[in-house]
Amino acid sequence: MLFSKSFIPILKNNPSEAVIKSHQLMLRVGMIKQSSAGIYSWLPLGFKIMKKIEQIVREEQNRIGVQEILMPTIQSSEIWKESGRYEDYGEEMLRIKDRQSREMLYGPTNEELITDIFRSSIKSYKSLPQLLYHIQWKFRDELRPRFGIMRCREFFMKDAYSFDLSDDDAKFSYNKFFLSYLRTFKRLKLSAIPMAADTGPIGGNLSHEFIILAETGESKIYTDKRIFEVNSEKTELNKKSLINLREKYEKYYAVTDEKFNKNDFETNVPEEFRLSTKGIEVGHIFYFGDKYSKPMNASVDYKGKKEFVKMGSYGVGVSRLVGAIIEAKYDDKNEIMNWPISISPYECAIIPLINKNDNSNLEKALNIYKYLNEMNIDTIIDDTEENFSSKIKKFNLIGIPFQIKIGKKSEGNLYEFSEIGEETKNLSVEDIVKIIINKKKIN
Amino acid sequence: MLFSKSFIPILKNNPSEAVIKSHQLMLRVGMIKQSSAGIYSWLPLGFKIMKKIEQIVREEQNRIGVQEILMPTIQSSEIWKESGRYEDYGEEMLRIKDRQSREMLYGPTNEELITDIFRSSIKSYKSLPQLLYHIQWKFRDELRPRFGIMRCREFFMKDAYSFDLSDDDAKFSYNKFFLSYLRTFKRLKLSAIPMAADTGPIGGNLSHEFIILAETGESKIYTDKRIFEVNSEKTELNKKSLINLREKYEKYYAVTDEKFNKNDFETNVPEEFRLSTKGIEVGHIFYFGDKYSKPMNASVDYKGKKEFVKMGSYGVGVSRLVGAIIEAKYDDKNEIMNWPISISPYECAIIPLINKNDNSNLEKALNIYKYLNEMNIDTIIDDTEENFSSKIKKFNLIGIPFQIKIGKKSEGNLYEFSEIGEETKNLSVEDIVKIIINKKKIN
Repeated sequence: MLFSKSFIPILKNNPSEAVIKSHQLMLRVGMIKQSSAGIYSWLPLGFKIMKKIEQIVREEQNRIGVQEILMPTIQSSEIWKESGRYEDYGEEMLRIKDRQSREMLYGPTNEELITDIFRSSIKSYKSLPQLLYHIQWKFRDELRPRFGIMRCREFFMKDAYSFDLSDDDAKFSYNKFFLSYLRTFKRLKLSAIPMAADTGPIGGNLSHEFIILAETGESKIYTDKRIFEVNSEKTELNKKSLINLREKYEKYYAVTDEKFNKNDFETNVPEEFRLSTKGIEVGHIFYFGDKYSKPMNASVDYKGKKEFVKMGSYGVGVSRLVGAIIEAKYDDKNEIMNWPISISPYECAIIPLINKNDNSNLEKALNIYKYLNEMNIDTIIDDTEENFSSKIKKFNLIGIPFQIKIGKKSEGNLYEFSEIGEETKNLSVEDIVKIIINKKKIN
Repeated sequence: MLFSKSFIPILKNNPSEAVIKSHQLMLRVGMIKQSSAGIYSWLPLGFKIMKKIEQIVREEQNRIGVQEILMPTIQSSEIWKESGRYEDYGEEMLRIKDRQSREMLYGPTNEELITDIFRSSIKSYKSLPQLLYHIQWKFRDELRPRFGIMRCREFFMKDAYSFDLSDDDAKFSYNKFFLSYLRTFKRLKLSAIPMAADTGPIGGNLSHEFIILAETGESKIYTDKRIFEVNSEKTELNKKSLINLREKYEKYYAVTDEKFNKNDFETNVPEEFRLSTKGIEVGHIFYFGDKYSKPMNASVDYKGKKEFVKMGSYGVGVSRLVGAIIEAKYDDKNEIMNWPISISPYECAIIPLINKNDNSNLEKALNIYKYLNEMNIDTIIDDTEENFSSKIKKFNLIGIPFQIKIGKKSEGNLYEFSEIGEETKNLSVEDIVKIIINKKKIN
């Protein structure tokens, strides 16, 4: 991509309306544009990142055998009346009347709709378990939308649902998602910790929030620091191995605010390991048995008996993750972002110093650009006449993990190359390609 | 995928509520499920097909240099008041009041929103042209939703927008999309003809609908049959070549109902070439100059002068295409669907005859299944105990283009193999793989 042809509207300064760093950065480098309160458009840079995150989330769902479907954004109020949540949900639900005055709503979550799909499709216990997910826009009419896409109204979310015959099977499904989420966040280079959490309007009695530490987080958390060392790498997708993983985590105290008990915390966590801080929720899983299946009559035939299926639900905030990763990785003191290469909008940026009436650096740059693209390295080149130091500053903000600078220090066939924010080295194009390809492989 | 684990709820008979074949087939093989009037959930089979179509549409947009973004579904009424369309649009617009009583709406189209994004981002003519697209859910509150996803309320659409300095440049952009659409529909194995069309509520004076012939179509069309022979293969992405392509099409009379003039038709088309029939609109492109840029003040600085940008918009109905392809390809007399392999939910189906107490065919089938997957052939295997002929009937409806039957006629290492609906041959697995891989390559 040529920067001059791209749609990346950069702001000179931090926008005054943004108070947290993800919101500042996303507006500043033109990743998003607000269209109305709590509602955003995703411009090419932000869009590419979100799509790559979506794809990682998708792959990790498929890997544990969840099947992808797609439910609509607009739902009928009927099914919410069946479950009893239509009145309960409150003003965060965007209620709509269509031209025939039918009561509709913009789905804030999909337990009712998926239960309706299940009950009309599956009749026998032999078809269980069923694990289904979709990745779709949702709407919660926040009273005070803020922090950009972190607490917005229209947001992009992966939500999955499990259907099982017994409590025991259902917990196996729950634990599959538990592992899947650890894998997902690890691939995004986030250290996300599962914490016992309240179930809120979803219901049930077993729930974990997956939380990454961040000063700007809205969740208060209390944990034993040793939980950061628990490793899920060798866990396999069977009941025993997954129970073992859950137990490894549950050895350590880790709860959100609503579950906090000072006495428990101090009894269970030696003082040197106590950590009370803030975090950002990036995933949330729930087990709620027959909370929806019973009122909505979603049952299977099991040896001549009608059994209400046992359900869980599992959410990852896909659009929110874009902001969460910025909160975790953006060095706002030095104004340097560094995207993990697997989700970066481009893999390498070429930044030539271009003087009026002297195109030699631009020509060099275009040659390298062509070569990198042939090597399947997705590259952007700044072909504008902006001055060299502002270009570098701009690309430090954009956060593409590798930079090739073509300025006065380039010698012959060697170019100034660096990982973003690191020392530059003079290297040949061939060596540069090797380094980038190697980084892609291990990520 | 094992059929027994899949979420493919098959109906025994055609559902009585469906009157056209795409609606019948999609409900019958569990591609979709209606959630309320004109609103559908996409189950795994339908979802996979729609995603593959989406990806082809995306690739052909990227190929002509359009950049992908994503606008939200919910828009503020403010921008529609600026353009003057808020009152005009009528009851098909789903109007919403949020908890603060602000007037919002579910976007039926995005000319206003993209113009708002453009005007706040681009200031100089040097950044032109800008071509942007997104693929997003839209809502039109049809009075009588019908024909399944062909005339529904919530639908998935690719819409693109172009911004240029001059009329001449803008027509170049228009013609790029003209070519891109021909390429897109060709990849989907559809013979879609561009027809001069009315501009309706989008506005402007130049417009083409891309229409495929189908008895169940809602568009009445009048054309010269020779237009089906026009070829776009050698067209290049430059002004001259594109104008040449447009001229090749415009030699032949081809209009939709609203543009029809009996006298013109009969004067311009020799009787033997006259065709008046019905079709399905799968794409629509518009050129409307400064219709939106002027009232919304979207201009660039051109040599010290303020110029309102010249705009066009370009839509492809992604969800509708699923139905349109069924209308074009489904043989409802023989109950055989045949998906083009590039968008088929699976590439091969293995159908073993399974008797109670005899697993030998299933074991053979599982071995072939494993081998095909290793060869990157996406395969589904019917491991259920349903009887052999119903299985075959079911897979004829599902429409996966290749079938391997493992019944009484299989001999040694040779299996009954066929393209769907064609004669079966006894072939080795290696030969089967060759045929499928070859078919994938040329598609």
